[in-house]
Amino acid sequence: MRELIARIEPVDEAVRTSTAQLLDAKTKPRRSLGRLEDLAAQIAAVRGVVPAGLEAAIVVAAADHGVAAEGVSAYPQEVTAQMVLNFAAGGAAINVLARQAGARLIVVDAGVAVAVEHELVRPLRLGSGTGNLAVAPAMSVDLATKAVLAGAALSDELAASGVDAVGLGEMGIGNTTSASALVAALLGVEPQRVCGRGTGLDDDGVARKAATVARALAANDVDPDDPLAVLAALGGFEIALLVGVALGCAANRLVCVLDGFITGAAALVAGRIAPEAIGAMIASHRSTEPGHALVLEALDLAPVLDLGLRLGEGSGAALALPILRASIAVLNEMATFGDAGVTDAGR
Amino acid sequence: MRELIARIEPVDEAVRTSTAQLLDAKTKPRRSLGRLEDLAAQIAAVRGVVPAGLEAAIVVAAADHGVAAEGVSAYPQEVTAQMVLNFAAGGAAINVLARQAGARLIVVDAGVAVAVEHELVRPLRLGSGTGNLAVAPAMSVDLATKAVLAGAALSDELAASGVDAVGLGEMGIGNTTSASALVAALLGVEPQRVCGRGTGLDDDGVARKAATVARALAANDVDPDDPLAVLAALGGFEIALLVGVALGCAANRLVCVLDGFITGAAALVAGRIAPEAIGAMIASHRSTEPGHALVLEALDLAPVLDLGLRLGEGSGAALALPILRASIAVLNEMATFGDAGVTDAGR
Repeated sequence: MRELIARIEPVDEAVRTSTAQLLDAKTKPRRSLGRLEDLAAQIAAVRGVVPAGLEAAIVVAAADHGVAAEGVSAYPQEVTAQMVLNFAAGGAAINVLARQAGARLIVVDAGVAVAVEHELVRPLRLGSGTGNLAVAPAMSVDLATKAVLAGAALSDELAASGVDAVGLGEMGIGNTTSASALVAALLGVEPQRVCGRGTGLDDDGVARKAATVARALAANDVDPDDPLAVLAALGGFEIALLVGVALGCAANRLVCVLDGFITGAAALVAGRIAPEAIGAMIASHRSTEPGHALVLEALDLAPVLDLGLRLGEGSGAALALPILRASIAVLNEMATFGDAGVTDAGR
Repeated sequence: MRELIARIEPVDEAVRTSTAQLLDAKTKPRRSLGRLEDLAAQIAAVRGVVPAGLEAAIVVAAADHGVAAEGVSAYPQEVTAQMVLNFAAGGAAINVLARQAGARLIVVDAGVAVAVEHELVRPLRLGSGTGNLAVAPAMSVDLATKAVLAGAALSDELAASGVDAVGLGEMGIGNTTSASALVAALLGVEPQRVCGRGTGLDDDGVARKAATVARALAANDVDPDDPLAVLAALGGFEIALLVGVALGCAANRLVCVLDGFITGAAALVAGRIAPEAIGAMIASHRSTEPGHALVLEALDLAPVLDLGLRLGEGSGAALALPILRASIAVLNEMATFGDAGVTDAGR
């Protein structure tokens, strides 16, 4: 873990500045492409150079959660495995959206209750679902460490394969409860402020979820300044793996494209482990989960999209990819005032 | 014109409802793709059927404006023609963004001061720039009518070529002044509330623009209930042509993807001529021009993106197209709960 953290450096601010200057020479009023220009400059700063394009992969990590026994999801636990098979068969939303975005999809079984055997599912299992975080730690610190390092190794592999950006996605019945507990613990906020409807809870369900998170915080005496201990106590296998993917992105100078609330919680943990990892992150969208706004604020990230999404799977990350790719195409393909013989008003 | 208006019918609400039901059967919590689901249902309602994909074209209409003589732009008038040649050469932002979006780009000379001769520029010239709307009508009602019908004919042609969606784009030094005058007249608001920085005016420039719009409203005694007269008095050739493209989209059941403030002003005129045309419109983004918020509110359209864009050219329309296309891919390619053997919680 120490070795991984040591590899993470700040993004290249000189490249960010030179990229912004490059954009100022293009045939458009200065800064008239707004956020698109910021994204182009950030991507170049992360990569250390203006990339030729934006090759992307999306990692969808799935796992089960002991806390599902508390009745905190609208769906039964077997849906996790069913959805992983749906990912493998190509029928889920993220399959469609990743195809549309021209992104490779990597489906990871990080610890579904019953192992999902399929040639298109990568077995990186940390166990058969976590323990019930409402009564005891979800996993040991050793297991959390192992999960993080497995995620970072996946980023190493993606970097070696020529990817520029990695989108984070997840699936796991009960994982908004785990994410809510992580966010409540790390930000020191009341469970009621963090918990939302997840995949479709009614008011009673949301109240039950908040009470479960409160029990989890009481049962696990976690030090908010020890992010790995917090992750072990309140996390999930897929979340811990995504913490590692996020850290691995930063270590490999890959752009890390967050999805919604769950991947945001993973990003928050990653940022506590290595604050400089946050510079490589782009928030693809603002989800409807109330805790997500708190996460974005804590990470100081402005979402690219705001479409009322609450699906997860990496769906928001996939939807934002064409915009990120367009920002790089503008850098590489637009003419300058000089090239095109267009009068530059200089503003 | 009467014939064109008679062809415009309301979008198919039964198809909107059946499309929403189709989405509810897909393997995701109900409504968890938020706005993406609304867009899919609207596109199907406009087309009258769930389309197989989303073939798109972007029409960029360019023209010059007599009001540029009032010093209302940060750029000199010759930039209009220079940028049209940039469009033809493929070096402008809209070229890059249309390529990224897989959309055909149609560049129209609707009345640049000096005709732009290029095989990739469609000559639909209504004149060599409009008159100065600050002192007299920009064009005659006959010319405005001719421009609208030329735009509608272009939509007819695009419909015949198999396009599902048409993005609106524009270029014309001085055209935020024309758009501001149109919006102020049609919505009955003070010029100061509508006028913004355009391509880069300073505070003095914005004040000069607002004063120019006030003079235009005084010089042209326009009846806000006669949208064609308002368009002739205060519009531009490219704006009038785009009013026609918008009406032609509705007449042909094509999705009309608006860009920013200028195309919004054209959409506002189109909506006053034929209110049912608004149902075919999608607002791609919210621009930084203050008048754009007024336009979106008047049309009751929520923007898909909010990226601080203020370029025009159809750039926001191009950036939104992948999201619209993704919404249709979700409809056509996602598995249902039944297909995939996933337990449906029914919510």
